[in-house]
Amino acid sequence: MPETPNGVVEAWLAQFDEALRSHNTDDVLELFDDDSYWRDFVAFTWNLKTLESKEDIRRMLDETLDDVQPSNWTLAEDATGDAANTEAWVNFETAQARGYAHLRLRNGKCWTLLTTMQELKGFEEKKGPNREKGVAHEITKGRKSWLELKEEQEARLGYEDQPYTVIIGRGQGGIGLGARLRRLGVPTIIIEKNDRPGDSWRNRYKSLHLHDPVWYDHLPYIKFPDDWPVFAAKDKIGDWLENYTRIMELNYWSKTECTNARFDEASQEWVVEVVRDGEPVTLRPKQLVFALGVSGYPSVPAFDGAESFQGEQYHSSKHPGGGDWTGKKAVVIGSNNSAHDICADLWEHGADVTMVQRSSTHIARSESLMDLALGGLYSEEALANGVTTEKADLLFASLPYRILPEAQIPVYAEMAERDAEFYSQLEAAGFELDFGVDGSGLFLKYLRRGSGYYIDVGASQLIIDGRVQLANGEVGKITGNAVVMANGTELEADAIIYATGYGSMNGWLADLVSPEVADAVGKCWGFGSDTPKDPGPWEGELRNMWKPTNVDNLWIHGGNLHQSRHYSNYLALQLKARMEGLPTPVFERQPTHHTR
Amino acid sequence: MPETPNGVVEAWLAQFDEALRSHNTDDVLELFDDDSYWRDFVAFTWNLKTLESKEDIRRMLDETLDDVQPSNWTLAEDATGDAANTEAWVNFETAQARGYAHLRLRNGKCWTLLTTMQELKGFEEKKGPNREKGVAHEITKGRKSWLELKEEQEARLGYEDQPYTVIIGRGQGGIGLGARLRRLGVPTIIIEKNDRPGDSWRNRYKSLHLHDPVWYDHLPYIKFPDDWPVFAAKDKIGDWLENYTRIMELNYWSKTECTNARFDEASQEWVVEVVRDGEPVTLRPKQLVFALGVSGYPSVPAFDGAESFQGEQYHSSKHPGGGDWTGKKAVVIGSNNSAHDICADLWEHGADVTMVQRSSTHIARSESLMDLALGGLYSEEALANGVTTEKADLLFASLPYRILPEAQIPVYAEMAERDAEFYSQLEAAGFELDFGVDGSGLFLKYLRRGSGYYIDVGASQLIIDGRVQLANGEVGKITGNAVVMANGTELEADAIIYATGYGSMNGWLADLVSPEVADAVGKCWGFGSDTPKDPGPWEGELRNMWKPTNVDNLWIHGGNLHQSRHYSNYLALQLKARMEGLPTPVFERQPTHHTR
Repeated sequence: MPETPNGVVEAWLAQFDEALRSHNTDDVLELFDDDSYWRDFVAFTWNLKTLESKEDIRRMLDETLDDVQPSNWTLAEDATGDAANTEAWVNFETAQARGYAHLRLRNGKCWTLLTTMQELKGFEEKKGPNREKGVAHEITKGRKSWLELKEEQEARLGYEDQPYTVIIGRGQGGIGLGARLRRLGVPTIIIEKNDRPGDSWRNRYKSLHLHDPVWYDHLPYIKFPDDWPVFAAKDKIGDWLENYTRIMELNYWSKTECTNARFDEASQEWVVEVVRDGEPVTLRPKQLVFALGVSGYPSVPAFDGAESFQGEQYHSSKHPGGGDWTGKKAVVIGSNNSAHDICADLWEHGADVTMVQRSSTHIARSESLMDLALGGLYSEEALANGVTTEKADLLFASLPYRILPEAQIPVYAEMAERDAEFYSQLEAAGFELDFGVDGSGLFLKYLRRGSGYYIDVGASQLIIDGRVQLANGEVGKITGNAVVMANGTELEADAIIYATGYGSMNGWLADLVSPEVADAVGKCWGFGSDTPKDPGPWEGELRNMWKPTNVDNLWIHGGNLHQSRHYSNYLALQLKARMEGLPTPVFERQPTHHTR
Repeated sequence: MPETPNGVVEAWLAQFDEALRSHNTDDVLELFDDDSYWRDFVAFTWNLKTLESKEDIRRMLDETLDDVQPSNWTLAEDATGDAANTEAWVNFETAQARGYAHLRLRNGKCWTLLTTMQELKGFEEKKGPNREKGVAHEITKGRKSWLELKEEQEARLGYEDQPYTVIIGRGQGGIGLGARLRRLGVPTIIIEKNDRPGDSWRNRYKSLHLHDPVWYDHLPYIKFPDDWPVFAAKDKIGDWLENYTRIMELNYWSKTECTNARFDEASQEWVVEVVRDGEPVTLRPKQLVFALGVSGYPSVPAFDGAESFQGEQYHSSKHPGGGDWTGKKAVVIGSNNSAHDICADLWEHGADVTMVQRSSTHIARSESLMDLALGGLYSEEALANGVTTEKADLLFASLPYRILPEAQIPVYAEMAERDAEFYSQLEAAGFELDFGVDGSGLFLKYLRRGSGYYIDVGASQLIIDGRVQLANGEVGKITGNAVVMANGTELEADAIIYATGYGSMNGWLADLVSPEVADAVGKCWGFGSDTPKDPGPWEGELRNMWKPTNVDNLWIHGGNLHQSRHYSNYLALQLKARMEGLPTPVFERQPTHHTR
């Protein structure tokens, strides 16, 4: 029996390789623990898929092995751990691609395996040793300069030449995906209604900073410079996105709105109607990507009497920040991230502020989140330990959603203990706390429902101190000058800000394509955890994100900076393969269980 | 006796450390070979200085040791080589700074030592683990956003607040130095007459690409993305510089010309008169940096009859590139880089072109230069071998100018052999070749005189084929429609382009400050090799570059992308130390031997 981590893993890989090559599925399954998970990003399944049992794995291998032809499973670097618990980074190949995998063994059997496609053979990015020369060292008449070629291409694309992909996107998601497609040679136009790349950040309220630390937020290819602050201000991020768009030489159509998109079955292409700086243009891409963040349209509940309110009232997304609120009363309905940030902003600028908390909220202090939840993967210490951003992304993905809660619960138990005084002060102020239905905390709330929490960057202290007042419970009605709670409490208001979240992402689809197409795609985000706002049945991967939907040639991209960075790679490879006409048999496309 | 490279170096460092700590200069010198060189960048000398003998080293140590207090000499990583020839990277400290050194031992004695200052203690860049948080997680009234602070600071600097440093610069030199100063917290304004950062590249002729490969050309802090071509086009570099300037948040005053600068002894500050977008502004920095490239004003020899020429005539710096030259005759006077590029450009666009070669020229084929001269330090292979850009820069600097020729001669001997057929074809076409007076090739020509060569990117083939014609010898006179060679050959011309180089860099000083100050500073560039255009006496380091000149608070910055990147670090540290009021005793400031 091998005893070293390398020995354990090499022995396992040799048997795995042999069993896969000989299509001996029984032998493959022998190598997996009874409790085991194989998560695959594109390499085997042309899908994002978690196989949660030996039977799942058998079904997948039976369907895919003939095409995939996996081989050359080798340690990418020394394995770690011991003979009982062993971890390893692994290179492998398929008929079509080169892959990278992460493996956890327990007593020599696989507990978790993550297989990912990294590049398509024959369609690698032209980088490093494969970079282009940039100039022919042979002088010929009529050759064009880089600038002439660039300007020509930009002028033709969308008019004489059609892009293969159109991304409708308003932020880092579309930009990061656009960069990946550019590097893969997939002609792409990004459509964005604002004037400048980055305006989706610049247009937010003045005090906004990233709530996640810098190590977690890089875009693909170019890291933030190493003097970037831990938490960048929204305008700094906006500027970065604008500079990034230029550096990556993206075809970025700003001041452009999509008015309609429909798939033309005859020509097998999308007909995307846009208005570019006032001029209508029809684009005919083969693939259409919606990259509109995690959220749909701003959602405002219909409160009785709202139309009678005499003051200003608007959704949190419209809050400008700043200004002089001295002597004014503001009521903010909601108690998640935006509500807290806006309450703080209003208080800073002189308002008398009340937060209406309608349901319990998970609060995680930024420092604690960094130390306990992110530090091992995204921090200076992680980098010093060799955990690059790219490795951190894979490690993060290496625990399937089924078992992620059990890994997260102890983190938040520790947080509750560490910040016990803080939490008891919040409770003393009347704030209703939770840590998720199962105590699994912030990331799972984010993944399941995309809401229900606040990363504390200071506003909680305002609530503890009573500088921001708190009203708990449901809103009863709204009058000409007040929000009246269901319990009768009257909150006088010169302004009401609805920090009440957003509708489903596929509201955009219903609007721009059709309600039928939106329903065929179905609910986006969440994975069927059967917890609040994430109905079952269990689906195992985020619905419709970065993988084939039930509408061909229609894709959803989004998520936070971390997710946009990581998953854009797999989406870009799926699009590239289709552009090149490679076979892309999708294993078990997910049925649509919920329309919106 | 230690036999391993680590053992050899560690034994040497221990003795060196002990001898330095006890100020026992005799013991120090015992550790050096009779033929030995100690090059120091700022760490010991607050100067750039090569000590070329034991006596030089003794003099330096006697003068500096009390202040410098060097200590903690330790291997930064495993040494390489064998007991006879050993190389090592070494960390050390001084009283004021942390340093990094490169050491070569021969049979246990030092042959070359390069000591460099890397950061001042207590004034480190705020990066990595020392980065700023970016936001206080405590909400207070009246706090300002990142954007408000940035805009306020930009509006005040140069008006209410004075910069510590003004850089008069038109390209990568000023921008890279500006970035270093920004990161060190030295308030700086960069003055540039063009509309946009990067215009100094954009305004050049259309076909221009970098002649050096991408690995050699990075700016400080942010590397070019890894899909950049080996040779980037001028507009791509221009765009990069513009994006870099934004990302680094430099105070970059475009559309601004300096009209006059004088030092006010009373206030000990410069009075720099500039016109910013039409409005006069007076700046009062403590330090003034001229970062105007390697060259001074365009230089055009006074040829008899030039004023009578009926066609177009202009200096190479004004050549736009492109256009339609069909049926036109062009004569290009000169045979170095610009002359070749412009001849090719004119030929491409239909002209009948003659190059006038007035003296022999060194030609190095780009491929051969990359393979033989640069590949070990600046290439994908070098990176794969662990030679980062930063290490390559130090290795490049680790061979002092005195012994650099002997290291370069074999490289060019190999090049002459490898490209023998190419060279004989050029000679057959009448082209007069050289490899430098001592056969030391391109870099030494560049360092000694900044001219006299062409990196072949295709134009030589045009000469070999006779598509660009050649006329050798001196120009006799110019008539209304021709250049007449001294030997009587008449070259008909519709246009004459003077690719005749540039005057001395301190022409700018004479003009903007005064001829007296320019003469006090003296000749810039070259190191006294007593070869053409680089008169003796021997000075050992490039005159006036990146180090204290003979005019206090006046500095010269420049060079190619590699030099600007590397040496800007030492210049920035010298400026930072002065801003902080640290003692900066300059060891043996170089006397001025030549006025211009």
